[in-house]
Amino acid sequence: MLTYSMQDAGSESLYLYIYRCIKNDILSGALVSGTRLPSKRSFAKQLGVSNITVENAYAILQSEGYVYSLPKRGFFVSDITFPSFSRTDSDTFGIAQSHWEDYFPRPHISYFADFVSNRTVPENFPFSIWARLMRETISAKSNELMNTPPCGGIPELRLAICSHLKQFRNMNVRPEQVIVGAGTDYLYSMLIQLFGRDKTYAIEDPGYEKIAKVYRSNGVACRYIRMDSSGIRLSDLEHQNADIVHISPAHHYPTGIVMPVSRRYELLRWASQTPDRYIIEDDYDSEFRFSGKPIPTLQSIDTLGKVIYMNSFTKSLASTIRISYLVLPDALLRRYYDTLSFYSSTVSNFEQYTLAAFLEEGYFEKHINRMRNHYRAVRDALLKEIAASTLADCTTITEEEAGLHFLLHIRTKMSDDALVQKAAENGIHIACLSGYYHSGTPDSHAIIMNYSGITLAAIPEAIRRLSAALR
Amino acid sequence: MLTYSMQDAGSESLYLYIYRCIKNDILSGALVSGTRLPSKRSFAKQLGVSNITVENAYAILQSEGYVYSLPKRGFFVSDITFPSFSRTDSDTFGIAQSHWEDYFPRPHISYFADFVSNRTVPENFPFSIWARLMRETISAKSNELMNTPPCGGIPELRLAICSHLKQFRNMNVRPEQVIVGAGTDYLYSMLIQLFGRDKTYAIEDPGYEKIAKVYRSNGVACRYIRMDSSGIRLSDLEHQNADIVHISPAHHYPTGIVMPVSRRYELLRWASQTPDRYIIEDDYDSEFRFSGKPIPTLQSIDTLGKVIYMNSFTKSLASTIRISYLVLPDALLRRYYDTLSFYSSTVSNFEQYTLAAFLEEGYFEKHINRMRNHYRAVRDALLKEIAASTLADCTTITEEEAGLHFLLHIRTKMSDDALVQKAAENGIHIACLSGYYHSGTPDSHAIIMNYSGITLAAIPEAIRRLSAALR
Repeated sequence: MLTYSMQDAGSESLYLYIYRCIKNDILSGALVSGTRLPSKRSFAKQLGVSNITVENAYAILQSEGYVYSLPKRGFFVSDITFPSFSRTDSDTFGIAQSHWEDYFPRPHISYFADFVSNRTVPENFPFSIWARLMRETISAKSNELMNTPPCGGIPELRLAICSHLKQFRNMNVRPEQVIVGAGTDYLYSMLIQLFGRDKTYAIEDPGYEKIAKVYRSNGVACRYIRMDSSGIRLSDLEHQNADIVHISPAHHYPTGIVMPVSRRYELLRWASQTPDRYIIEDDYDSEFRFSGKPIPTLQSIDTLGKVIYMNSFTKSLASTIRISYLVLPDALLRRYYDTLSFYSSTVSNFEQYTLAAFLEEGYFEKHINRMRNHYRAVRDALLKEIAASTLADCTTITEEEAGLHFLLHIRTKMSDDALVQKAAENGIHIACLSGYYHSGTPDSHAIIMNYSGITLAAIPEAIRRLSAALR
Repeated sequence: MLTYSMQDAGSESLYLYIYRCIKNDILSGALVSGTRLPSKRSFAKQLGVSNITVENAYAILQSEGYVYSLPKRGFFVSDITFPSFSRTDSDTFGIAQSHWEDYFPRPHISYFADFVSNRTVPENFPFSIWARLMRETISAKSNELMNTPPCGGIPELRLAICSHLKQFRNMNVRPEQVIVGAGTDYLYSMLIQLFGRDKTYAIEDPGYEKIAKVYRSNGVACRYIRMDSSGIRLSDLEHQNADIVHISPAHHYPTGIVMPVSRRYELLRWASQTPDRYIIEDDYDSEFRFSGKPIPTLQSIDTLGKVIYMNSFTKSLASTIRISYLVLPDALLRRYYDTLSFYSSTVSNFEQYTLAAFLEEGYFEKHINRMRNHYRAVRDALLKEIAASTLADCTTITEEEAGLHFLLHIRTKMSDDALVQKAAENGIHIACLSGYYHSGTPDSHAIIMNYSGITLAAIPEAIRRLSAALR
């Protein structure tokens, strides 16, 4: 007969103790499948506990499937079969004794200045305004904050983005065309679902390797298209049978090329030739142009609904607030809402409402103006410091009128790898243009000077180190 | 010779006016490709403006590609080809005169009570604590907030999730196993990329239709597996050649079935039979169990690294804060970090740090306890109100011990569609169990009473209306 010593329960609840004892007996095989457990009343009496204690223990055993009950007959031990644990493939089943450091190794080099990474310098983020708008949002919008937003985001933010696009880019966009999502990576994957996996996607070479990674990771065909001085080559696009082309016409990364109007119209003509062709216009840093009027977007000269415009608050606000957006042409709206609107929005309501207020109340415009002045000052200080350094005699600078990087061309016999290595030894993180080519290219001797994360104060020392490294 | 009347400039900047005049002449064909523009100096003199004004105008024209410059020769009109605008396919190219309402029609029915949607009642969200923690985060962590987090989220949040899982689910999980993302939809798509598109995914039938939609939208094979009273049928899994099975063993939606231990071990054994088989354990509402001890997760009895655990703060905190997470088994960690860690985190640092503090400082535990009491009170009030209504004679209630819904079985001659329709006419939004079957099933006469968005105050009237509707 089933019995347990209640003295061994220690400080544990009696019902949990009984539950555990019976479970162990089932797992060990002491209680075999089909065994009838004592009735609650008699078992309680025998153990010297209340009926409710046994009842609770049985209830847990039943809810976990160790026992089952039959009406008017009582509780019975279930038939539990255990897996065989046969380790047929140690690579697949081997459980690593891994640690955080295995996946996030500490960097060997701590850089004095980093001309590669994108990071908003904390002094440049409008923390006090953001905190106030967040507080106001929480206190004024408790009801709206709990309402499930449409997949493309709350109407207020989408409308505020339309006004911003009208004001800054002279684009005429309606809120239903704006789809807000948690970063451009996420929006790329939405576009793949929208266009289909049978399409061939074309990206710029050189370009951001990450865009190719997203396409490949999503299992779609992705072709690299070489660029000339006006942007991607149309002939290659035809040759590669591309359907969807992904470009940054306003300011290509990392070459800085601005696609001229002629190429833009050629591209639109290319897209108009078959119904499946579309252009993704990634306008990632158009807010930061230092001279002249911003160039009209492809989206605004597209009358055939062939352009999907993309932008993000990553560069303009902070890369750690994950809000990007698409502008879909009318031709794709119905398809989007029919096939993809079942997805939940990926951006928190709290941040959507806060950003909407930030845009509506004019803070974003002020922030952009302040940042443009800041980045211009950083760029000017860098150019001045380079001109006054030993780099002046062996370098030329190009593409400094827009975006947050310029190219520093060096006359040197060192390889690009050696340049990067020597700079690193001097505490300066740089990357060369050649590293952004997929199809291979001779050493460029062109350093991409991305200065978004550089402070004014660090510039003299950074350039002193860089010139020492590259001498 | 090129000339414009500067009187027509009006209030526009002179350089923008000149830019616009020349651009219009190029677009209209008045200035043809190859035409040399006057020299800046002579043109400025002729127009009676400063040299810098013409220089600015030419710079914009050049940056936009309307003109090009040749060293020492000057500026020339570019060759711009326009697209043909031939509308070959009006369905594809037709631009709809669409409006917001076309995509977001206003609902015809305004419900008095909604037993279908998931929404956190605003009074239940800890707004003041959240606002304070957000404020503290912003003031104390300005530097960390701007640092790009790893793809899987900030270490602080991942560690806090480990502690939570230890405390609430007795799971032993290390922070590198925890991958935070903007909602479960997003995490499903990560898992598809991790496992591969050549796998066959199996989901529960009945179940959430949305899970199937995500799999289908991502272009992978997805099979519906019928359930018996212990959960999905193993024989069907074998029969359908499934590789990855997606289940909610702790509390199936909408049947409320808790998978017994025997079936759990059978499933683990199934998974152990080939290296490609895995189990996704979606533990979406395990925080809300009203009786007995929570059931151990599949993850915690899996010694072979075959289980991916998933959970979310959607039900436990608010569906509009988009934070969910995966727990990867060791066997998949290296693959994840090698192939998917290039992705940016999809959750804002601001919310990651705030949620980490909310967990670490014990607020989440208190919130869950408070919510569990609240939901128990709502459930009890509903059961009491039903028992006191005319529904008592014609209904039975099941699966009321866990989660945020129970099943109300009605003895009626009405069809399920008629039940839903009659309830809607009385201002009550309900759904029937039969609607969650993919493979078709006779009318269930079982209403899923999801009470997460119901207030205590609304219950008497809601049940009065429901009983009137179903009479």
